[in-house]
Amino acid sequence: MEVERGSVDGPARPAGCPAGEAASGDPLPGRRSVDFPVAAVLPAGGCGERAGIATPKQFCAFLNRPLLSYTIEAFERVAWIEHIVVVVAKENLHQMMDIIQQFSHKKVTVVLGGSTRHRSIFKGLEAFREQSDGVTLRKPEVVIIHDAVRPFVDEDFLLKITVAAKDQGASGAVRPLVSTVIATTSEGYLDHSLERARYRASEMPQGFLYDIIYRAYQQCCETDFEFGTECLHLASHYCGTKAKLIEGPPTLWKVTYKQDLFAAEGIIKDMLSHNGCVVAGGCAPSVQLACELQKTLEARSMQVDVISGPPGSRAVLVSGTWNFIHIAVSLHIFSVISKGRFLCAGLDLTVAWSVHLNLQPQCSVTERMRALGAIRSLATEAKHGNILLYGILLSRDKALEQWDESMENVAQIIAALVKDRNPGLVGQLLVA
Amino acid sequence: MEVERGSVDGPARPAGCPAGEAASGDPLPGRRSVDFPVAAVLPAGGCGERAGIATPKQFCAFLNRPLLSYTIEAFERVAWIEHIVVVVAKENLHQMMDIIQQFSHKKVTVVLGGSTRHRSIFKGLEAFREQSDGVTLRKPEVVIIHDAVRPFVDEDFLLKITVAAKDQGASGAVRPLVSTVIATTSEGYLDHSLERARYRASEMPQGFLYDIIYRAYQQCCETDFEFGTECLHLASHYCGTKAKLIEGPPTLWKVTYKQDLFAAEGIIKDMLSHNGCVVAGGCAPSVQLACELQKTLEARSMQVDVISGPPGSRAVLVSGTWNFIHIAVSLHIFSVISKGRFLCAGLDLTVAWSVHLNLQPQCSVTERMRALGAIRSLATEAKHGNILLYGILLSRDKALEQWDESMENVAQIIAALVKDRNPGLVGQLLVA
Repeated sequence: MEVERGSVDGPARPAGCPAGEAASGDPLPGRRSVDFPVAAVLPAGGCGERAGIATPKQFCAFLNRPLLSYTIEAFERVAWIEHIVVVVAKENLHQMMDIIQQFSHKKVTVVLGGSTRHRSIFKGLEAFREQSDGVTLRKPEVVIIHDAVRPFVDEDFLLKITVAAKDQGASGAVRPLVSTVIATTSEGYLDHSLERARYRASEMPQGFLYDIIYRAYQQCCETDFEFGTECLHLASHYCGTKAKLIEGPPTLWKVTYKQDLFAAEGIIKDMLSHNGCVVAGGCAPSVQLACELQKTLEARSMQVDVISGPPGSRAVLVSGTWNFIHIAVSLHIFSVISKGRFLCAGLDLTVAWSVHLNLQPQCSVTERMRALGAIRSLATEAKHGNILLYGILLSRDKALEQWDESMENVAQIIAALVKDRNPGLVGQLLVA
Repeated sequence: MEVERGSVDGPARPAGCPAGEAASGDPLPGRRSVDFPVAAVLPAGGCGERAGIATPKQFCAFLNRPLLSYTIEAFERVAWIEHIVVVVAKENLHQMMDIIQQFSHKKVTVVLGGSTRHRSIFKGLEAFREQSDGVTLRKPEVVIIHDAVRPFVDEDFLLKITVAAKDQGASGAVRPLVSTVIATTSEGYLDHSLERARYRASEMPQGFLYDIIYRAYQQCCETDFEFGTECLHLASHYCGTKAKLIEGPPTLWKVTYKQDLFAAEGIIKDMLSHNGCVVAGGCAPSVQLACELQKTLEARSMQVDVISGPPGSRAVLVSGTWNFIHIAVSLHIFSVISKGRFLCAGLDLTVAWSVHLNLQPQCSVTERMRALGAIRSLATEAKHGNILLYGILLSRDKALEQWDESMENVAQIIAALVKDRNPGLVGQLLVA
């Protein structure tokens, strides 16, 4: 077993990924360590009205996983965040509990929200006070407040927000304004436009010393509770704490409208498509093909590990990718791989996919038909485990020129499958 | 030739589409008619810096067509807009001329931009003054200014903006603020947050009486030319014209960051995926299958026309869709369809695709191999014409239960191909 290149970690990696766990356990060289308790509150009670769809945006699924679960995962893999309090509306409680179970979220406490955003956040903060049932979450020194519909926040930025909140009492992400902001008259005419450079859009996450933001909510008036939207305003107004503002990356944007759902899907798929792992069988031609394929895929800007070992072995997962290309020199492979071996000992692989690449020298038609049948039934099984399985057939008996063209075809097919991750085409035997 | 259901028109339909032309020629019942000259200026000189990519966003291609061309098309199909002046940077001039030719834009005049946004718009407006080469575009009464990177504007909204500009002298699209806007201190702390309800984001399009906006630019000071971004401000400041603000749909958003490119791609593909046209050959089993398929696809929320006629005939295009499913009862179809018949008399089909669905009762292996070869070479040819061609094989010799399952499989495969429009999989023969 040989891993030729290190794994690449990405923020949208689904739950249960060993590479993700390893990354969160890493020391953070040159970065300030977090030696005080930190927790997060994620208000997730929104109703999705603005996206014009029935499902609240945080529950919209991308690659079979709700947006909210990606956001939780972004916090869960940060080792120094102890607890994540998710605040949901009563009608989504059941669904939320299912998500926690299905995606094995370990740090999450669910709390029922109030009638407005601020009331919900306050309820989230109260989870750290003593509960009537005696269960108490350790009170954090810094609490991070973040929207459930901003899944692409990374550890670096969370650290910046946390450290600034510890030092200054409050901190918040800001972004430059994309559009000019204008004040309107009551009749719907332009009153004046603001000078864009003097203003910023206030985004999430925001960080607070827990005692400050909790006190602010305790003193909060009904009008603020009812109509307010800005936590930084509460800290400033009720506790005199002026937040330190930190410019965040554009990926902090809030999934709000229908186009944002497309954007989120595109980003998630894109993040999962940059690396792959070619698993070669033990024999020489298979390893040789693996190396050729690595080169061809890398010319398409894909980072590719080559591993030799039996397909489906647990060790394959050390490569930390979600894209596997198994190479087999015989079509029999499809009959040989059993579900048990393939699904890798119960790991919760949400969006992995696998291509079985065949390089039979002379492939009889009967064999081909049998292979097609085998790969279809295997793909149907694998789909239940959220694994998308496709077959690619490559004939070895080709002239050199044709061979190069075929390798290009293989790479093109793999790139197409990786890009789209479309479950509608699983079980197809594609020809390179 | 029988069309069973009317065509559906969508804003992102590519150039050269007969349905689009028909729609723009429609009378607009109950709407105010435009009986004065209207033109548009599209500044397209941005450099794409914020998206973190080398290509300026307006030149990024979606389904082989640059974003800018979709925006131009949105204006070009509006019958009452006479001229479209596109303002580009010198380094993009050549590319711009290619786009005009490739996508057959008829109303476009290209003008070289200046060093800032306002200077570029002014140059665009000057195209309607007498030119040194004697060529003059008719001076519009109302000019619409719109960003090249907001491709999803529709005729209804352009009409609202135009009518308001004619009545009030100036008008502009606004949207509610998604994030709270805050004023910052020079040290990077919160100064105060604005009350969200009193402010709006100023978006595009904006409309002006030509004489007003031209005068505003003539009087514009260097500071405004250099640092300003808001045309409404100029009309107000220099001509005392307060713009009427009109709330626009969320799809007016500006493609700015990398996630917006994913969003635009998703919207374009989504808009093209809602309808399709099943073309049945003349024989009874083919027509029967067509009707079954129509039902199955409609259960997946796709609007489907059924047409019977030879594949590739020009009449197919009356259905106004970009998704064709040709049904053939013999695998010979792949050898029979020639490129000439298929590409439909030189129509500029940018993103059409086609599935050839086969329902051979007993299909010999040799036939299957020959079909695969034929569809691959046909797909390679078609790709040059921006047509994506895939094959689906459906065997007719099945028990009723299996048949229903197969129909579901066909629909699933079609839905997957329509959704992704991935050129990497053309020429594959998929099995239902």
